[in-house]
Amino acid sequence: MSLFEGGSIETMIVMREGTTPVEVDHVLERLAEAGARGHVSTGDTVTVIGVMGDREVIAGIPMEAYPGVEKILPILRPYKLVSREFRTSDTVIEVGGTKIGGSHVALIAGPCSVESREQLLSAADSMKEAGASMLRGGAYKPRTSPYAFQGLGVEALEILAEARERTGLPVVTELMDPRHLDAVAEYADVIQIGARNMQNFYLLSAVGQVEKPVLLKRGLSATVDELLMAAEYIVKEGNNRVILCERGIRTFETATRNTLDLSAVPIIKQRSHLPVIVDPSHATGKVDLIEPLSLAAIAAGADGLMIEAHPAPEAALCDGGQSLNLREFACTAKRIAELVQWFGKTVG
Amino acid sequence: MSLFEGGSIETMIVMREGTTPVEVDHVLERLAEAGARGHVSTGDTVTVIGVMGDREVIAGIPMEAYPGVEKILPILRPYKLVSREFRTSDTVIEVGGTKIGGSHVALIAGPCSVESREQLLSAADSMKEAGASMLRGGAYKPRTSPYAFQGLGVEALEILAEARERTGLPVVTELMDPRHLDAVAEYADVIQIGARNMQNFYLLSAVGQVEKPVLLKRGLSATVDELLMAAEYIVKEGNNRVILCERGIRTFETATRNTLDLSAVPIIKQRSHLPVIVDPSHATGKVDLIEPLSLAAIAAGADGLMIEAHPAPEAALCDGGQSLNLREFACTAKRIAELVQWFGKTVG
Amino acid sequence: MSLFEGGSIETMIVMREGTTPVEVDHVLERLAEAGARGHVSTGDTVTVIGVMGDREVIAGIPMEAYPGVEKILPILRPYKLVSREFRTSDTVIEVGGTKIGGSHVALIAGPCSVESREQLLSAADSMKEAGASMLRGGAYKPRTSPYAFQGLGVEALEILAEARERTGLPVVTELMDPRHLDAVAEYADVIQIGARNMQNFYLLSAVGQVEKPVLLKRGLSATVDELLMAAEYIVKEGNNRVILCERGIRTFETATRNTLDLSAVPIIKQRSHLPVIVDPSHATGKVDLIEPLSLAAIAAGADGLMIEAHPAPEAALCDGGQSLNLREFACTAKRIAELVQWFGKTVG
Amino acid sequence: MSLFEGGSIETMIVMREGTTPVEVDHVLERLAEAGARGHVSTGDTVTVIGVMGDREVIAGIPMEAYPGVEKILPILRPYKLVSREFRTSDTVIEVGGTKIGGSHVALIAGPCSVESREQLLSAADSMKEAGASMLRGGAYKPRTSPYAFQGLGVEALEILAEARERTGLPVVTELMDPRHLDAVAEYADVIQIGARNMQNFYLLSAVGQVEKPVLLKRGLSATVDELLMAAEYIVKEGNNRVILCERGIRTFETATRNTLDLSAVPIIKQRSHLPVIVDPSHATGKVDLIEPLSLAAIAAGADGLMIEAHPAPEAALCDGGQSLNLREFACTAKRIAELVQWFGKTVG
Repeated sequence: MSLFEGGSIETMIVMREGTTPVEVDHVLERLAEAGARGHVSTGDTVTVIGVMGDREVIAGIPMEAYPGVEKILPILRPYKLVSREFRTSDTVIEVGGTKIGGSHVALIAGPCSVESREQLLSAADSMKEAGASMLRGGAYKPRTSPYAFQGLGVEALEILAEARERTGLPVVTELMDPRHLDAVAEYADVIQIGARNMQNFYLLSAVGQVEKPVLLKRGLSATVDELLMAAEYIVKEGNNRVILCERGIRTFETATRNTLDLSAVPIIKQRSHLPVIVDPSHATGKVDLIEPLSLAAIAAGADGLMIEAHPAPEAALCDGGQSLNLREFACTAKRIAELVQWFGKTVG
Repeated sequence: MSLFEGGSIETMIVMREGTTPVEVDHVLERLAEAGARGHVSTGDTVTVIGVMGDREVIAGIPMEAYPGVEKILPILRPYKLVSREFRTSDTVIEVGGTKIGGSHVALIAGPCSVESREQLLSAADSMKEAGASMLRGGAYKPRTSPYAFQGLGVEALEILAEARERTGLPVVTELMDPRHLDAVAEYADVIQIGARNMQNFYLLSAVGQVEKPVLLKRGLSATVDELLMAAEYIVKEGNNRVILCERGIRTFETATRNTLDLSAVPIIKQRSHLPVIVDPSHATGKVDLIEPLSLAAIAAGADGLMIEAHPAPEAALCDGGQSLNLREFACTAKRIAELVQWFGKTVG
Repeated sequence: MSLFEGGSIETMIVMREGTTPVEVDHVLERLAEAGARGHVSTGDTVTVIGVMGDREVIAGIPMEAYPGVEKILPILRPYKLVSREFRTSDTVIEVGGTKIGGSHVALIAGPCSVESREQLLSAADSMKEAGASMLRGGAYKPRTSPYAFQGLGVEALEILAEARERTGLPVVTELMDPRHLDAVAEYADVIQIGARNMQNFYLLSAVGQVEKPVLLKRGLSATVDELLMAAEYIVKEGNNRVILCERGIRTFETATRNTLDLSAVPIIKQRSHLPVIVDPSHATGKVDLIEPLSLAAIAAGADGLMIEAHPAPEAALCDGGQSLNLREFACTAKRIAELVQWFGKTVG
Repeated sequence: MSLFEGGSIETMIVMREGTTPVEVDHVLERLAEAGARGHVSTGDTVTVIGVMGDREVIAGIPMEAYPGVEKILPILRPYKLVSREFRTSDTVIEVGGTKIGGSHVALIAGPCSVESREQLLSAADSMKEAGASMLRGGAYKPRTSPYAFQGLGVEALEILAEARERTGLPVVTELMDPRHLDAVAEYADVIQIGARNMQNFYLLSAVGQVEKPVLLKRGLSATVDELLMAAEYIVKEGNNRVILCERGIRTFETATRNTLDLSAVPIIKQRSHLPVIVDPSHATGKVDLIEPLSLAAIAAGADGLMIEAHPAPEAALCDGGQSLNLREFACTAKRIAELVQWFGKTVG
């Protein structure tokens, strides 16, 4: 029944209406030169060419540039190692005694950035007590404004390490520059790649060569497939412990900072074996959305959550409950743990 | 401590740097002519004018057009009757013996369109048995292609009415044209306004004058506040039984047909007293995302779900479970009902 | 050389990896039942099915719903009558002695809405004098807020007719509701369908049956192909005098009200024979962008412009030139006409 | 007339309806602690607080987190050094004998990446002959797929330098990793920062310390103001020779690879003194859109263009003219130069 023998169609080339045989032949010759094969189907209106051959070869052929080509329709997904087809069972990643993936849900929490030893240790104690399974805190901070606080750097890394020793919680922190890789890899249990660096390919390659799990955040304008391609960069270098993170995409809606795309969770779990978590804090920018969207993420099948919480000096004032202080985080964490259990999973 | 006496600032006008006193005076005169007031604050760099007065008056002033105006920053939300401030408690809407809002979760299900009497009655029986609280089915179909099936019209409305008598389920169907209003209002229990008509203001006014609840779907490129403004159109005409529906917005992501914006659910519940439901079928276009996103919607606080299901002739083939046939709907509905109960609510 | 005899491939069905022969056969059977044909290509990894047959038949087949189907890739564009393939030469539309399309560039100008007889007649005289080729003015206004001015209705139509008699300029005005069709068609020379109604399919069908040219604006979240599909609705009913209008799409950028998509102009001219104009006023919401973007639209190949201008009572104040009053419009119109001439075309 | 003495309002804080005096006082205390001042305006419905003080101080205050705060409305733009207010006249940048900005339009052209010495020198000769004012060519290539060609690195830089000596054209090439900075700065005349690195803040700081002009491309999901903020990062480090580049943003439209936002050109020129160019090649991904959109960019006021062109081995085949080969580039370049002249400017 197969018309195209000897290989899968990777890509379909649709020729413009009115294309000439010489253009079609030219495409076939260029494909052959590049090491791929094309099979032509000529109809009344349109001619299509199915392209077969090695995925890596085909990825490098500039088919759009050939005369007569109207559009290119990719058939196969462009990643391999991270795909569900490559590995059917869920990848479970172990980090410092806790697990993520399969039936293990990670609850990663902590302040946006490490501001001081007191602030972080206080936060760490509370996170631990509230049931978090990992501690987050930024040492290097990407800031839209050059006039804003840029992070404490190595000092912050040392404070994070102290918090880990004190609480036993593994530490997640962001790497922004390859020149900081050694320092971050020395202190962190999980290296975070932020949304703005999701397609910083040299950085991806660099963390692919380190023996630490990587938490890779989806870019603001990245599709799910581009996120998986970015993960492929890391895995291709030998590091297959990659945790994906949905944290909102940029849309026209301004009621939230970004638009949290929870459909990405079941989509990623269909297409990939890697664990995927959700960051409702950065996605929405609104503390009173954290609990409902954390529960929604769990219900959608997420393997974890990343939540911002910090010691609140204005605790006494906070009866109205506008800010996710440590006490509020404890409430939310309890509710999350209950729902996780209802779904037959466990935190950590 | 108030600098601006006698009214709230509805809007801030930010003048361009280098604006002249004559431009500022001109703005103040035009505001006064229109029946509003402006209070000026001149700083080193920038002059801002707070605008006070009646909301309806201010909405009609073309402030952007005045010389020297840089931008307009609205302070108050532009809707009133649908706002949470106008009515603190949740609106609960009763439809044919079932309820939506507060602790009542609606499960609205059925085929996309009424194709035949047999198809719809079979679907209706299954929906009823699976625990749905309302039946949906299209009589008039908005189709992107003029060459696609456009719906059975009045014949479909009659079939829906028969299904209601048979099952007791109230019927939801879409109104697309004011010329069909009488027919739709005669047969339907809930009149649906589709996403493409969310800003069809004459249609909104028309259903505002009918004594039937209205299910108003969010437009593909509408913000939450625009959805609430569209609801205000209906309520302003006297019909305060409006159910809002999140069904995905248009973004760059192509893995799903649209991007389901579940953050809209808690945002709407903060800003409005109206019930809000979620349609995962139209949002994603993918049957295997319906269950996880239905559960996520419930966890985010939705007051209901709208799900497409239809009798499946290929049931025997369906071991892989790719298509949401009637049996699959029954499974999903059961899971939804369990989670609804976990949250202390009831279906219907 | 053709593997697929007897027809063009309209659509490619890509099956999921691991699809079974029984699923593939099922798809083929359903296609056959519906009156189409499928040709299977089975590879190492993936199976694809090319679908051939009548375009209208294929448009109605719910292929996404079949078990085992991963995705649907359309090959042919879904419109026919409006396509460049259907008619190779540019459509030139004559309206009341002026032309649009080919080497004729329309300059449509006037106030957003008809506010009074004096306002409109004053504007009309100035538009005429400045070299506009048509007059625009709204009689029915779509307003996001139910509290804003909704237009003068029939009274405005009568004023527009008076302006036409006085100046000789053909009149463009928007139709928002099928119940106003007779009135609008009686007075207007060109019936405008606004962006919010671009997919109001009953309205499209209605204006397709009227003997007046239609100016169809692109919806805020509509692709170019969806705009062309909407035009197909009108042309299919017999009215082939459709003018398309790019007026900005909704994106995350807030510096302009919408994002003017000037690439749409050459894209539409490749894909369709219909004339396409640009509305920089609604796209940007900023008067000082109108001139640069009008010139850019002409340079991109647009067949016309639609610009808002109105009599400015604050003329004396306007030295800074912030607002496009009648004098400013005259300057901009002159500059546009010079660039049109540079490109070897004429206004009107 | 000023109510707020001693400073401009930088930001407005809008409090939630029903906010309490204790919350308002708390905000004022926190602002005072941070070194800023707040002025309160309490109305019937809503309380707003105008925030005054040093821009850098205010940028660091987490106002969103304070109890009772509904939203933050920035009044002033968050950049200073790159703003039109900071420097009224156009910045003109001189690069190797050619100029960009003011009345000087740059025409930067060349292949996407340096593939070989022959390919690049051939392209360079043709660019020179066709009237280009600078040569582009990638040495390090950001590729979405890890399986695609990643660039020749230092070898490519050496080839570019040879092409410069041969043709006299200054060379533009992209920097992707701070570890390549020395090499790139040694060979390049202009250092390009790609769209994916627009918010790679460490990289921005690094090129801010180099004595070479920087060509900064707008990110796919970056607003105009974010682009200007990224430029501010560079200028703040001492390098004020920054050229901005519009290259399309990500939207739902798929007819072009990205959506070219030509409104950004006049907007940037209003807000900043820096030159801004347009890259129609990357924006659209379609060779036959390059000429119309290049002309449109010039008409919109762009200070330059960046166009991809390469030696075409299939020249003989190219009668249909689908691919921008060297001969086609020559035609387009001629047309661009003519339009530049019509606007009273010169290339280079």
